[in-house]
Amino acid sequence: MSDLNYFEDFTQGQTFDLGALAVSREDIVEFAAEFDPQPFHLTEEGGKASLLGGLAASGWHTGSLVMNLLATGLLNRSACRGSPGIDRLLWKRPVFPGDTLTATAEVLETRGLNSKPDLGLVTLRVTADNQSGVNVLLWESPILFGRREHGQ
Amino acid sequence: MSDLNYFEDFTQGQTFDLGALAVSREDIVEFAAEFDPQPFHLTEEGGKASLLGGLAASGWHTGSLVMNLLATGLLNRSACRGSPGIDRLLWKRPVFPGDTLTATAEVLETRGLNSKPDLGLVTLRVTADNQSGVNVLLWESPILFGRREHGQ
Repeated sequence: MSDLNYFEDFTQGQTFDLGALAVSREDIVEFAAEFDPQPFHLTEEGGKASLLGGLAASGWHTGSLVMNLLATGLLNRSACRGSPGIDRLLWKRPVFPGDTLTATAEVLETRGLNSKPDLGLVTLRVTADNQSGVNVLLWESPILFGRREHGQ
Repeated sequence: MSDLNYFEDFTQGQTFDLGALAVSREDIVEFAAEFDPQPFHLTEEGGKASLLGGLAASGWHTGSLVMNLLATGLLNRSACRGSPGIDRLLWKRPVFPGDTLTATAEVLETRGLNSKPDLGLVTLRVTADNQSGVNVLLWESPILFGRREHGQ
């Protein structure tokens, strides 16, 4: 028996601690320069002149950082088969240099696929809180997992 | 008069050509190693063993690449004030090494904010098609813009 998580191992309400990560000023600016070069993601001055109040991470950066925790903390320990997308994603508060984010995944729903009997869909709510316990990021996404009965 | 796009300049149905970008194997693997280290984003073998059919870009990578086109092609030429999130995001088809993506933004809705009279919300549908004209990515997101009457 494999120790991977298969579709059958997920149940509604189950939660997974995904660990924590620190966000540095260098990381914020480097990511923004490559992928999201808006003034409030590039310089302190640009951030202070914006609604964010200071240099803040691109939302795509925050999401990608938390994706890494989700992949290493859960998906790579599971029979993950990918995802068709994200149902909703909220950048609830700015992420500033020096912030530490702690992430959790919760199972919202599990659903077998009649069209693909070797797969099931698990909808996860992924959240990240900063060091003050303030929720900064939330997304809900259906993720495909292999079924144990069809597992390798 | 500023040549920036303010809230008042966006109208439902308006479209913006955001340009194109090429996705390399090195970029796919590098992004995945840092942010989404699942087997199908890291090696050709992992991709072939997956539903994706071959090494394919992380959806966060594809989104971030297209975000760069959105920022440089539209938001940085506009009085963009950031975004609270994404309403839905679909990774419709895999993005493979060597693919060229062409992106477009369409205005779905514009809405003034009673609570913040200097801002308005513009909901954009951002899409990216590959070199075969196949839609690979779609997202819909409300974005805040300053109003011209309050503009600098």
